[in-house]
Amino acid sequence: MKQTLPINSERLQRQIDELAAISAAPAPVVTRVLFSEADLRAREYVKNLCREAGLTIQEDAVGNIFVRWIGKDSSLPLVATGSHIDAIPNAGRYDGVVGVLGALEAIRALQESGFEPQRSIELIIFTAEEPTRFGIGCLGSRLLAGALSLEKAASLRDPEGKSLEELRGDAGFGGQDLKKVKLAAGSYSSFVELHIEQGPLLEKENIPIGVVEKIAAPSTLRVQLTGVGGHAGAVLMPERHDALLAGAEIALAVEQAALNSGSPDTVGTTGVFRIEPGAVNSVPCRAWLEIDLRDTQLPTRDGALKKIEQAVPEICKKRGVTFELQRLNVDAPAICDPSLVNAVSEAGRELGLEVKKMISRAYHDSLFMAQICPTTMIFIPCRGGVSHRPDEYSSPEQIKNGVAVLAATLARLASNS
Amino acid sequence: MKQTLPINSERLQRQIDELAAISAAPAPVVTRVLFSEADLRAREYVKNLCREAGLTIQEDAVGNIFVRWIGKDSSLPLVATGSHIDAIPNAGRYDGVVGVLGALEAIRALQESGFEPQRSIELIIFTAEEPTRFGIGCLGSRLLAGALSLEKAASLRDPEGKSLEELRGDAGFGGQDLKKVKLAAGSYSSFVELHIEQGPLLEKENIPIGVVEKIAAPSTLRVQLTGVGGHAGAVLMPERHDALLAGAEIALAVEQAALNSGSPDTVGTTGVFRIEPGAVNSVPCRAWLEIDLRDTQLPTRDGALKKIEQAVPEICKKRGVTFELQRLNVDAPAICDPSLVNAVSEAGRELGLEVKKMISRAYHDSLFMAQICPTTMIFIPCRGGVSHRPDEYSSPEQIKNGVAVLAATLARLASNS
Repeated sequence: MKQTLPINSERLQRQIDELAAISAAPAPVVTRVLFSEADLRAREYVKNLCREAGLTIQEDAVGNIFVRWIGKDSSLPLVATGSHIDAIPNAGRYDGVVGVLGALEAIRALQESGFEPQRSIELIIFTAEEPTRFGIGCLGSRLLAGALSLEKAASLRDPEGKSLEELRGDAGFGGQDLKKVKLAAGSYSSFVELHIEQGPLLEKENIPIGVVEKIAAPSTLRVQLTGVGGHAGAVLMPERHDALLAGAEIALAVEQAALNSGSPDTVGTTGVFRIEPGAVNSVPCRAWLEIDLRDTQLPTRDGALKKIEQAVPEICKKRGVTFELQRLNVDAPAICDPSLVNAVSEAGRELGLEVKKMISRAYHDSLFMAQICPTTMIFIPCRGGVSHRPDEYSSPEQIKNGVAVLAATLARLASNS
Repeated sequence: MKQTLPINSERLQRQIDELAAISAAPAPVVTRVLFSEADLRAREYVKNLCREAGLTIQEDAVGNIFVRWIGKDSSLPLVATGSHIDAIPNAGRYDGVVGVLGALEAIRALQESGFEPQRSIELIIFTAEEPTRFGIGCLGSRLLAGALSLEKAASLRDPEGKSLEELRGDAGFGGQDLKKVKLAAGSYSSFVELHIEQGPLLEKENIPIGVVEKIAAPSTLRVQLTGVGGHAGAVLMPERHDALLAGAEIALAVEQAALNSGSPDTVGTTGVFRIEPGAVNSVPCRAWLEIDLRDTQLPTRDGALKKIEQAVPEICKKRGVTFELQRLNVDAPAICDPSLVNAVSEAGRELGLEVKKMISRAYHDSLFMAQICPTTMIFIPCRGGVSHRPDEYSSPEQIKNGVAVLAATLARLASNS
């Protein structure tokens, strides 16, 4: 492999390790939920690194962080990159982080090589790519793209009933107007996100770089079930309206809808399942489910979605359990920009790195950035395709390759006036 | 109704209200989990009331509280009564409490009437009748009766992995030896527990008092499931080993086992169901279930238990999920003492209160006290048969009736030398 830029892999690995240590749970687990103490400390850590690199920092009302390397012609639309640093409970250290600290390393390598960008280059650290707190993913990028209405944003509540408004206020972003988060059209000329694959293909085929042509169509449902509680010894079986059992049938119906959608790419997951009161001798009176359904094809995704939305009332009627079913989001797939896909492919070729064209099955901020500017993603392999687990892993060499391709791509895009 | 003893219903109601206010959750919810701050404060509250009544107080190594009114002949085996003050999350104010504060009121009324017991009367406030913390009910009375081995007690862990040894130390009981909790044979001549029915029969038939002839056979299982996690977008359906879905099938199998046991009295409940990591975009890698199964008949209970224990490995094998299945307890039914059942019936008759002979479907400390001394229970009606919920309710009059029958029964038993 040809390596032209002074990418400092050791520095990058050290910073990945330092960021991983900022977690609500002990190592190797990384847990950084939106606006938790760990999330806020992680933001400070990354902003400090950006300041040390001489970059300017701005934050918007929802906590998206914009880190800018000002180009020679600051009147031109910017070249953007970025990802997220929030992490679901019991996660690993690379998801999102590689696209933030890796992009920062790409910028530092370009700076150190003497490169002077024509267009400004902006690193965006998106708020809450993960849906942990509000059940909706890509909160920051949705709002940037205008893909989430302010009414819907105002109605978001976390499991404890706290609103986005309250939580962003507590986190120090309350002084700004949420209306101003949406970006003006033409703000960016392009967006390229570096990310671990979160799937097994690159590793299996031993290819160092993927470039994303399409991002799968995701959707998220929330189901709240209310049955009738009571003492587990005293309420006889025919008199029961058990919210957990209704939830169990719904989770199994989600699996069936995904398995029988007609497409092998449909995946359905009940990832959140909480019950109340949660005591062994008490009939569960309430259940709270969050369901994730995705596909590379819109028709099969929507078919499975319909099946689930039919199953919920049927199951609840049979069990005498009431339900509230919300579509937290139902998004279309994103098509990536062919000229950006080519730019990444050529950057890889110049560096002597094979590049595979891919579909992203996971959700990314790129899904929403694609709504407002030409977008693509650079993937690197991760061990076993594993993600959202403490044993998530990409090697220093794999990460360095991704950073090199990102840096070369940014250099191309920022030179172009 | 004939009322001979000066039972102060107003005082008792005020104390029930004051105790209900000591809770980890805001009113009307009562939540007092073993050795939580609320549980410890509630213990202090009750001990203070007992001190005010001039009674002696002792505590053992697991936190059982023994409140004694010393009789004329303190060499005789004692007459005992009592119940518990711990409460499951989101519970009400009467379960257990009526048998503690009601018994204290019975003792005060007997004191104020000038009655002098021949035998000492002991009010026992049992530690952790509710299984919330360790998944095993009647912790205190099991240890008193020698029905829980010290090895098993030492192996108990709460969901955070804390041991009984650690928790009782933190609660201030660490200085005593757990071995000494088991009572010497013949310590008590009888035990009578006052309790709300937790079922609808007394209310439906408009009968003020129940006397228990038999307590149902309870059992508790814990199932820990380990599947394979991963990103909800990236792991295709055929490659999944979803711990939640295995748990969902097990919960439904519990329901089927209870429904098809051959007895209408078999009840099966999955009351605890937790998953990890619990993020919408992550395949659940672990699940933790606690299952409660009871019956008035041992053969049908054991048949259902066997079906569940067969279903767990089948479901897990099919899904490629590993499991650990523990029997936390498998208890036989308790047969109450006929002469005590008669004593309660006669006390009711003297007071002009109809008494119904009943089966207790719920679990009680009496189940274990019956292993070491003649035992029965006095039931009073509760609205709608509801228990383990904040709207649990028995009227002041219903409670007063129960206290009157308890007091008259204790007087009979303590006069008998």
